[in-house]
Formats: sequence, C-alpha cells, structure tokens
Amino acid sequence: MDERQQRDQSQDREPPPDRPTVTLSPSAEFPPMSQDELDVLRQVGRDWAAALRDRSRPLTALPLDPALGRYSSVVPPTRFGRFGRVEMFRPEAPDKLVATEPAVAAESSRGRALRRVRRAVLGPPLASAAAVQERMRKIIALPILSSDLLSSVAYGPEAMLTVLVLAGSAALGLSLPIAAVLVVLMVAVGLSYRQTIPAYPHGAGSYIVASDNLGSRLGLAAAAGLMMDYVLTVSVSVASGVDAITSALPPLRPLTVVLGVVVIAALLAGNLRGVRAAGNLFAAPTYAFVIAILMVLAAGLVRVAGRGFAPVAPPPSAAAGGIGIVLVLRAFASGAVSMTGIEAVSNAVPVFRPVEWRNARTTLTWMVSMLIVTFTGLVVLIHLEGLVPKPNETLLSQLAHHTLPNTLLYGYTQAATALILLLGANTAFNDFPRLLFFMARDGYAPRIFLHMGDRLAFSNGIITLAVTALVIFVAFHGRTQSLIPLYAVGVFLAFTLSQAGMVVHWRRKRSAHWRKSLVINAVGAVLAGLVLLTAAATKFAAGAWVVVIAIPLLILLALRVRHHYDTTGAALSLHPLPAGTANRMIPPRADGAETPRADGGENQPTAADGAGGEGEQEVQESPQEVRHLVVVPVARLNLAALRALAYAASLGQPVFAVHISPDEEEDDRFRQQWQAWGDHLRLEIIISPYRAIIPLLAHYLEALHALRPDTTLTVVVPETVVKHWWHQLLHSAAPQRLRKALRALPGVVVTSVPIHIPA
Amino acid sequence: MDERQQRDQSQDREPPPDRPTVTLSPSAEFPPMSQDELDVLRQVGRDWAAALRDRSRPLTALPLDPALGRYSSVVPPTRFGRFGRVEMFRPEAPDKLVATEPAVAAESSRGRALRRVRRAVLGPPLASAAAVQERMRKIIALPILSSDLLSSVAYGPEAMLTVLVLAGSAALGLSLPIAAVLVVLMVAVGLSYRQTIPAYPHGAGSYIVASDNLGSRLGLAAAAGLMMDYVLTVSVSVASGVDAITSALPPLRPLTVVLGVVVIAALLAGNLRGVRAAGNLFAAPTYAFVIAILMVLAAGLVRVAGRGFAPVAPPPSAAAGGIGIVLVLRAFASGAVSMTGIEAVSNAVPVFRPVEWRNARTTLTWMVSMLIVTFTGLVVLIHLEGLVPKPNETLLSQLAHHTLPNTLLYGYTQAATALILLLGANTAFNDFPRLLFFMARDGYAPRIFLHMGDRLAFSNGIITLAVTALVIFVAFHGRTQSLIPLYAVGVFLAFTLSQAGMVVHWRRKRSAHWRKSLVINAVGAVLAGLVLLTAAATKFAAGAWVVVIAIPLLILLALRVRHHYDTTGAALSLHPLPAGTANRMIPPRADGAETPRADGGENQPTAADGAGGEGEQEVQESPQEVRHLVVVPVARLNLAALRALAYAASLGQPVFAVHISPDEEEDDRFRQQWQAWGDHLRLEIIISPYRAIIPLLAHYLEALHALRPDTTLTVVVPETVVKHWWHQLLHSAAPQRLRKALRALPGVVVTSVPIHIPA
Repeated sequence: MDERQQRDQSQDREPPPDRPTVTLSPSAEFPPMSQDELDVLRQVGRDWAAALRDRSRPLTALPLDPALGRYSSVVPPTRFGRFGRVEMFRPEAPDKLVATEPAVAAESSRGRALRRVRRAVLGPPLASAAAVQERMRKIIALPILSSDLLSSVAYGPEAMLTVLVLAGSAALGLSLPIAAVLVVLMVAVGLSYRQTIPAYPHGAGSYIVASDNLGSRLGLAAAAGLMMDYVLTVSVSVASGVDAITSALPPLRPLTVVLGVVVIAALLAGNLRGVRAAGNLFAAPTYAFVIAILMVLAAGLVRVAGRGFAPVAPPPSAAAGGIGIVLVLRAFASGAVSMTGIEAVSNAVPVFRPVEWRNARTTLTWMVSMLIVTFTGLVVLIHLEGLVPKPNETLLSQLAHHTLPNTLLYGYTQAATALILLLGANTAFNDFPRLLFFMARDGYAPRIFLHMGDRLAFSNGIITLAVTALVIFVAFHGRTQSLIPLYAVGVFLAFTLSQAGMVVHWRRKRSAHWRKSLVINAVGAVLAGLVLLTAAATKFAAGAWVVVIAIPLLILLALRVRHHYDTTGAALSLHPLPAGTANRMIPPRADGAETPRADGGENQPTAADGAGGEGEQEVQESPQEVRHLVVVPVARLNLAALRALAYAASLGQPVFAVHISPDEEEDDRFRQQWQAWGDHLRLEIIISPYRAIIPLLAHYLEALHALRPDTTLTVVVPETVVKHWWHQLLHSAAPQRLRKALRALPGVVVTSVPIHIPA
Repeated sequence: MDERQQRDQSQDREPPPDRPTVTLSPSAEFPPMSQDELDVLRQVGRDWAAALRDRSRPLTALPLDPALGRYSSVVPPTRFGRFGRVEMFRPEAPDKLVATEPAVAAESSRGRALRRVRRAVLGPPLASAAAVQERMRKIIALPILSSDLLSSVAYGPEAMLTVLVLAGSAALGLSLPIAAVLVVLMVAVGLSYRQTIPAYPHGAGSYIVASDNLGSRLGLAAAAGLMMDYVLTVSVSVASGVDAITSALPPLRPLTVVLGVVVIAALLAGNLRGVRAAGNLFAAPTYAFVIAILMVLAAGLVRVAGRGFAPVAPPPSAAAGGIGIVLVLRAFASGAVSMTGIEAVSNAVPVFRPVEWRNARTTLTWMVSMLIVTFTGLVVLIHLEGLVPKPNETLLSQLAHHTLPNTLLYGYTQAATALILLLGANTAFNDFPRLLFFMARDGYAPRIFLHMGDRLAFSNGIITLAVTALVIFVAFHGRTQSLIPLYAVGVFLAFTLSQAGMVVHWRRKRSAHWRKSLVINAVGAVLAGLVLLTAAATKFAAGAWVVVIAIPLLILLALRVRHHYDTTGAALSLHPLPAGTANRMIPPRADGAETPRADGGENQPTAADGAGGEGEQEVQESPQEVRHLVVVPVARLNLAALRALAYAASLGQPVFAVHISPDEEEDDRFRQQWQAWGDHLRLEIIISPYRAIIPLLAHYLEALHALRPDTTLTVVVPETVVKHWWHQLLHSAAPQRLRKALRALPGVVVTSVPIHIPA
C-alpha cells in the first residue's frame, strides 16, 4: 500500500520523480527494496551469523564448484546429444555467468519440438539488451499513431446513418447537423488532449492521468474502459476491414468469419514476433488511405459541382419507427465512434524526438484536422449522393463506386481502407499489453503481464487481447454494425475520466494559464461525459449493457487482484523484529521433555509466548530456528524406498519411517522385512482397515505437526520417474497425491527423491 | 520373470501349490518378498549399520514421539474443526496404530463434499475384514450363475432368424436344423466344462486355464476374448432388456438410448456399492424368467396342439439375397450367442459349498439342460407360429402376445425378461474386474486394478467396464441386432483356448481316464474353434472386424504393460551385491581435490571403476553413499526465500544459492541486497539475457550433476501456497515448472518449502 499512497499524494510533482523514464523493462518483475526492508534484512542476517558461527564453515566448502563457466566447454548441451558441444554459459566475472541461447532451450523432446515451431513462426529469441525505445520523426509518427483514429471514418459515418435510416430515408438529412456537433466535439477533445501532453511528457494514458488525479478506483474505471476499447478496436476494425474486402469481392461474403479469424491470427503471430520493428513500413497504409479518401472526395465534389450541388434524394425506405430525440441521440453516439483512437498520441509522447511534448502536440493537431476533413467530407458527400447503408456493401465502397471513374482506383480505395483498418487493429496490440503492464506494476493485474516473452513483446497481454477479440468477433458473426453499440461507452468513459483528471491536475498545480487549461479540459470532460451518458443510455438495449456490466466487474476483479497481492506481500515481506527476539515465533514446548538435537542443539532459548495463531510457525528466518523431523513413507522395501531412506538418514537429522498396511497379515510381512534389513530406523506402522493411504498420511502428519508446531516435518517421498507420460498410468499416483494433500499443511516440507526407470 | 517362468513350468501340479486359496484380497497389492530379496536386504542393512554406528543414535532420538495413538484424543479431526473431537487413530500395540474411519476422510473442503456425495450413493466405507467369501447353496448359485447364460435366449433365437430372413421367409425353416446343431454344440461345450471344473477347483477361468497350459500369450488371447465378451454382455443385455421394455410399452421406444444409459449408470452405482451382498434377492429374476418361458412354451404347445401341430406360414417377405452356405453359417454363428455365459460356473467354483467341484458340476448340468429346453422350445414354437423378426418388437414379445391369454401374464413375461437381462449384465460386473485383477496380479494390466475401493469392490475395473460398455451401447444407438455380430467372436475364442488348454492339461497329467477326458475336451475345442472361425469370417464385415482387430491390440497392450512392469521391477528390485563393494556405483572423482564433508566423511573408499552408464549413480542404498550439495534458487530476498535458505542451511550440508537476473542492473541490485543480508551463503548469479528462468536452472543443475554424478543435488524451492486455486493464477508457476523440468534429471532431489498465504 505504501508505494500506492505515496503516489496518490504526489500528484503535484510534475513529472513525478519516482516514475522511471524507461517504464517498460524486463526488470519490472524485480522491483527494488525499500530502505526499511534492507534494514530488516540486515537484522535477520545478524541472527544467521550467530547460527553459522561455530560450524567451521561447512556452508561454503562445497563438494563441487558451482562456478560453471570455467568448464562450460565440456558440458554437452542436452541429455540427448547434438553434433557439436555448445557453450551453455560464458563466464562474465569470477562469480557471474551469462546464459547463452542454447541454455534457455527446453529440456524435453516435446518442449524442443514446440520451440522449433515457435522459432519458425516467431523468430529466434531476443536478448533483453535489444529492448531499445525507438524515436520517431513526426512524418512517421503521424501515420502510425493516427491509423486507429483515421480508420474510424471507414465505419463511423455508416454507423450514424444506419441508425437514422430506421426512421426512414427522410431522416437521413439529419446527418449534417449531427456531424456538425461531432466536429465540435472533436475539436474540444483534441484541444483537451493538447493540454494533457505537456503535463505528462512520459506518457499520458487515461489510466495514469485518472489514477494520479482522481484516485485508484477511477483510474481503474478508465483502465477498464480502455481495455474494452482496445478489444473492440480489434473486433470492429477487423470486421470493417473484412467488409471492405467483401464489398469489393462479393463472392468472399460467406467467408466473413473465416477471413476475420485468419486476420486476427496473423495479427497475433505478427505481434508476438514483435512487429513494432517494421515502423516505417507501417506509415504507408495511412497515407495511402488519406490519399484514397481525398481522391474520392475530390472526384465526388467534381461530380456534384457538375449538377450544381443538388442533393440526390435517397431511395425511399419504410420507416421502422418515427424520428425522435432518442434516435437522434443514438445516431450521434454511433457517429462518435469516429473519434476512437484520438488518445493514441498522448499515450506515446516518449516515442517522439525532442522536444517530445511539442512534437506530439503538433502531430495531434494534424491528426484531428485530418479527421475533421475526411469525416465531414464523407458525410456531406454521402448526403449529396443520396446513399443509404446496404447490408452487403459498405457506404464507403458505394461512394467510391459512384464517384471514381475506373475499377483500378476503386480497388485501390478498398485495399487502402482494409490496410488502414488492419493497422488500426494493430495499434491495440501495442496499447493493450502496455496498459496491462502498468496495471500489473501497480498490482491490479496478474504479474504474468509484466513478463516479456522471447521476442521482448508482452506475449501474455497480446494473447489475451487476441483471444478476447476473437471470441467477440465470432460471437457477433463479424458484423460491424452489431459491434458498434458496444464500442463508444468504453472510449468515452476513458476520455471523460482523463479530462476530469486534468481538471483536478490544473486546480492543484496552478501553473501559468492554469485557469484557461482548466476550462478547456472541463469543457472536454463535460462533452465527453455527455456522449458517454448518451451512448450508454441509447444503445443500452442494443448491446451497450454488456459493457455497462463488464466495466464494474473488471474494476472489482482488479481490486480483488490487488487485495490478494497486498495480502501476499504482507505475508512475504520482511517485518522489523523487536530487538532481541530472534526466534519469536516458536511457541513453548508442549511437553517438558527436552529431546537432544542432532546438531548439538546449543543455545535454543525457550522463546516468546506462543500466542501466535496458525501459520506463524512458518516464519523461521534463520537456521537455528528450524528443528527437523524427517518422515519417510515406505510402501515396500524396494530400491526406491531404500534410496529415500538413505537420503533421509544421510541428512543427519532425526528420521523415522511410516508404513501403512491394509491388514495385519501384510503388517507382519512388512515388519519381518524391516527386521531382515536390520531395523536401522524407527518404524511406525499404521493399519488402515479402510485401505486409504494418502488422506491417512496427511492426517497423521497433521496430528504430529499439531503436537509440536515448532518442528519442521520433512516428508521424503520416493518417486519413480518414467520416460514416457503414458507409462505413468501404470504407476501409482501416490507421490503426486501425497504432495497435493500435504501442500495445505503448514510446517510440512515435501522432498521428492526420484528414481528413474530406464524405459 | 521368475515367478512367471516358475508357473509356466509347473502345470503338472494340481492344484498349483503356489496359488493361494483366497485369491482376491486387499494385500494383493503388496506381494511377499522372495528369500533372495530378503538376503539382499540383509546385506544392504549391514552397510547401514556401519554408516550409522558412530552417530550416537541420533536417528532414533526423535524430537517428538510419532506413536500418535497415545494422545489421539487431543488432536482435532480436521483443520476446519467439528463439533466433537474424534479418535483418528487407536493404538493397537505399543508400536502399531489403527486408523479409524474419520482418519481416512479427505482434507480439503471439496474432497469432503465429494466424499459426502459418494457416501450417500455408495454407503460408508467397509473395513478390509468385511471381505469374506460367501458360500452359496446350489439352489441360490444356480440362478445367480446362470442368469447370463439363460438371458441369452432372449436375443439368441432372434439373432439367428434375423439373418435367415434376409433370404426370404422361406429360409426361416432352416432354423430347426441350425438349432439342432447348436444343441449338439451346447452339449459338447457343457461336457467340456464339466471336465474343467474338478481339474481347477480354485476357479477355472479361461485366462487361467489357457495361461497354465498354453503359455502366457494364448492366455492373454483368452483374456482379451473374455474382456470383449464381458463388455458386450453388458451392452447387448442392456440393449435387449430395453427392447423387452419398449416392446411392451411402445411409447418409450424413442428413449431407447436414454433408458440404456440410465440402466448402465445404475449397474455402475450398484456394483461400486457392492451389490454382491444381495445374493439371495438375485435368485428371483432367473426363476421368474424360467417360469415365464415355460409358461409361454406350455401355452404355445397347447395352441399348436389344438391345430394338430400344423405350422403357420410366415408372412411372405422379399428376399434380400439367395440362400447360401455363407448365410446359413452366419445364422448359425448368430444363434451361437445363446451360449454366452456358459463359462460362469467354472469361474466361480470356490463359491460353492463343499465338495465345491461336485456341486459346481451338478449346477452346470442343470444350467445347460435348462438352456437346451428353453432355447429349443422357443425356436420350435416360433417356427410353428410363423413369427418373423420385426424392428419394433422382439420375437419373444411377439410370441408371448400370441400365446398368452391375458395382458397381465404378458407383462409378467416381459418384466421377467428385462430383469434377467439386467442380472445377466450384472454378472459381467463381477467377472470383468476379477479378470483384470488376475491379469494385474500377473503384471499384464495396470496395478490400479488390484486396488479394492472403499466398499471392497474393484472399483477401477467396474468403472472401466461401465464406461466401455456405455460407449459401445451409445455408438450403436442401443440396437441389439447391430451389436450381435461383435459378440460371438470373443466368447468362442475364450471357449476354444480354454478347452485346448484342458487337452494339454490331460496329456501332461495322465490321471485316471485321462484319455476320455482329453477326447471330450478336444471335441469341445474343435467345435468351439469352428464356431469361432465361422463367426469371425461370416460376420467380419457386419462388425466382427472390430473384435478381430481389438483382440491382438489388447494382447499387445498387455504384453507392453508386462514389459514395463518387468523393466520397473528390475530397476527397483534389490540385486545381490558382490562382497565388499558397498558403494560400487560411485565413479571416481573428476578432480583430485577431496573436499571435506560435513558429516565427517569417514571411510569413503574410492570405489570401483566408473564405467557405469547414466542412472547408475542413483542406486545409493545406504546413507554413507550419499554426498550432498543443496541448491536454493532465489528470485527475491523475501520471507519465502529466507525460509528456504534457513531450511537448507539448517540441514548442515553444503549449501549455495542461485539467482537468475534478466540484466546487469537487476543483478547489481540483488547482490546489494545479498550483501545487506550478510552474504552468509555462497551466491551464484546467472544472467539470463533471454529472460528464461526454468530451462536455464535445469541446464545449470544438469551441468553440475554431469561434473560430479556421485553428488546428490537437493534443490530447495520456496513455494507459496494459496487458499484458493484461482489465486494460484496470480502467482508464478515457477516452482511447479521447475519441479517438472527437474524430474527428468538423475540425482536431483527437489524439496518444496511451503509458505502459506493466509487469504
């Protein structure tokens, strides 16, 4: 909690000095220790020194030197052999080894086969050192960051008209005033984000801005909205991209779902491979798309100018219902999906060349301008041409068919549309894992999202996104217009919270012109909030309810995750010890008898009061606090059992063996064998008239532990290991079941002594 | 192999003295040791005495007394508490405990809920002492053992006519001569089994007779045939029983498959519960069925006598093909399914009262007589009444409709038929698990089939049978006549091999009248063999191919299982040691340096030549052969890691820690923490530029092991244990993955040190 609270109280620092500049790194999984923790560590260490003092240093005199680097060349790389010997480790310093690539290869033959496939698809693993932050020029950053935003015009105007046409073709004329309001909204949100960029030069994602200024819960709300947004960006962009293709090639129409699945799989593979490297190539589709739209607009304007800008009346269609305020608002909310992706630049400020915030802000201005031009142009032209949405062809395709003189240009337009939509979907594959990374760093998402894969991509986040988007895409049969109602809510929730966060930010900071900035952000927040409410209300029945329910659930889930990590952290962290109570956790002996200890049992103080509840006895932090009792369950006196017994006895700690007999006859037989062997260890026989073994052992050990919670029971289990998994079916699963049953018991350590069956 | 070979060479002893009288017992899982093995054990034990001599007996001085019985009353039964304290163990003798029923209850709440359900369905667990062999009077044994055989007449005649009718209704007249040949066959097989019973008074299952006399492979062939037979007995009897019901109540016809599934599930539950106890009750259906058939026959004979035994011409039906020798043979083979179950008495000789074999033989004679009467009577009467098979009503139902004066008697007939078929199916639930038990005892089936469940039933065999029969029943949509072609092959294979085995038996034994006995069994073998060939050939395309393929596969599987158990046995058994080479497996040191050992390392001879291959170093049978090196992988210096380090250090063996860093920065940070703690143990840091951890550790430990195969590496893994499984998703799976990766490495022992997260 400490770090969190610190952060919450530090919103006025700008940029917060405790946020590292390079935020995405492989060492994020290993956070540094606080000074307090280091102090506790020192204190614990002093107890160790006492414990190890009179052992004549057996702990450092090792039977073999683990500094493997010195003889790495004689170690064959795998048990199965290869043609040559491979250097697995290279020595860096006297006591430091560096693993080479062969050393990270999996052991088993199946693992290696899997690895070969993965390598073929994803490429060889990349070393952490390859993780460099690429800096982009504006001319490259603009198309890459704006692909999500600009691709929205491929489905945004259509989404708006699809709603209006429900009130009959006469209602289509309302598209012009609605578009005008949307342009106002675009300008307002664009201006708002222009404020945000210089305030958060290290990246101003809605999650970070909202968390910093509005507290963690609203930050999580923004994050949940963004997560929904990213998932839907992939589903909607892929669906719309497939629409662009099938509009041009109608025979492919029945394959819509298959095409979408293939595209999502390709995006998944590409992103696991790490497609960010191909930056410059990614600039092309955006420019191609902008050129295509401008071309369509120009050709269209020439056409309508030729007839004196007289609008063509749309084909009459039956009204499903009357025109009303709800329908207009719903059309407005649907058209607002054209704005999705506007937040991309503010997330990505650090990728610009210096001065980062200035370049980012300029890029944002260009982006919004291009959006306004293309969006307005398309809405006006569609109106003038009297086009209406059709189920089998997109409006953009109809318009291109209408205006462009030849098939080649039409094909180019559709291809450019499909490509920019693909690229738009791809941006979600960058942003979603990054958002989860930030959440995981704060403990709100599982830690696996911190982990960078082989190729330095956040594989787990990428896979999560692809799978979720795929499920949604398939569930909606790849129909763009069915997906639209789910889309706007998440985005505008994030917009609203981000802008509201900026309002708080300005109020607290009171830097130069803070009042003007505050007003701009407040206007942005209010407008975005209005759209949010409109979208949630008018599209609730059409599908927005999914999002309205999912967002609180995601927040709750994130809070539960955080709670669990807090509990775990508290349980595992080092607490300062009250001075002089080294082994405070040991309750007093249950019986008076002081049994002698194998290691001499020197200064074992009778310790503090045993009031501590269950689990406390586990916190044995230095060697002299550990009292051993080794238990070896023995089924038969075969080689596996003898090896386990020999292992247990060789530890030099008190040992006894347990045997469970189903009946007296077998009991006698076993006892006789034990005598023949020489009765070297104490043997306990339990007769199990009900033939159960595992629960009996667990209860027995639990009872032992309950008697003397200060003793660590080590259960040494002989385990036969076979070469093939199907051979395992022929052997008892008792060791696995025993391990599982004993996991829940405190103070019980399980040791598996393997014996390998050759075939 | 030894035991097996001994048995194969001892066929002339009669009964074989090494076969225990009570063959099914819970201690079958724990076979006794041979004298050789005991000698080796003594030899190994002498090495231990030397190893433990100068330890001032620390191994018997335990920190707490494991004789738990003395204080059982203070141990609460589970961690979750109950209302009263329960005695978990009661002391039997000073060093012997007996588990009470609460002690075998599962630990986890899910396990306990499951147990409650199981208890409700199956009843409370039974102690092993409850396994008493029930002895039956002939009047009870007859109906119980003959239900399978007699119930066959419910579908046998119909199976024959279903084939004949393919050649048109004129061909139906051939049923009389075919039935006559079948009666000859029944007499011959019956006489053959009369010979077998006194020769094998302890149970003369085909598997045992064929194994003893023809060798293990043909024994397995008989077993495979029987296994197919038992599975199909369940499927066919249930299908036919459901037919009897739906014939009487046609509206239930569409529910055929559902009814069958319910019946099989009921059989499964009943047998897991242990229905054998209800012996006397089981006698009723057979007598009821016999009475019903005799009633039908009597009424029918009165009817046909009234018209002077003039046969009614069957309704004309189109011939699907001409009458030919193949069709006649196929009809014969189909009719032969009426004989399935004839082997039941010979399997069950020990359940009779003394003199067992004489009572069994008398019962067999009665059974076969009843079979011949009912079978012949039904075939003749069906012919005289001119009945033909119909898809929606069984022939027996048609006949009963025809002959019986009122609905009540008809209903009684159908109910009795359904009940005896159910009982017939139930006998397979006794015989199949018993066969698997015998196979498992010989190492030809997985050992789980040796294990008696809670209720003293062989649960695993029962479940296997029910699942297999269910799959077949559903796959054939519960159609009796589709299942018939699969049926005869397995049965007659077992008959043939069993009788052929008896021929060999008589030739070897040459007791009184051996020539006569030999001839009878030879005739039986030849006739059964002819039926086998006929069935396999004529019904091959109709479905017998499944069985023809499955039987060799089952034999192969059994041989593979045996091979694996032989390999395992050889690897785990105690081999005699050459005198004076106590630690023969330790190869010479790789380097000259003699590192000091913690336990004093007294007389460590430099041992024999290290030519032994991989895996040999595992065979350390006495404590002084074990050299320790303890390795603790440490991810962060938290409480879990410190506990693992403290545990490792407290063992008093050489210890070092390994840390894997993704990069240099993290490496330095960790080293700094290690220094703050006090640098008490040697630390190895490996830098993993590719961020992999588990395979790297596995390779590192493998390399260490390769350098000094005589050293046992103990890897102490800290493992966080959470209360709920879904919390596990929030934690690294590294301990589990590490354990899996290290399983394959020889000489590596894995120790899990748990730390429990409270919530």
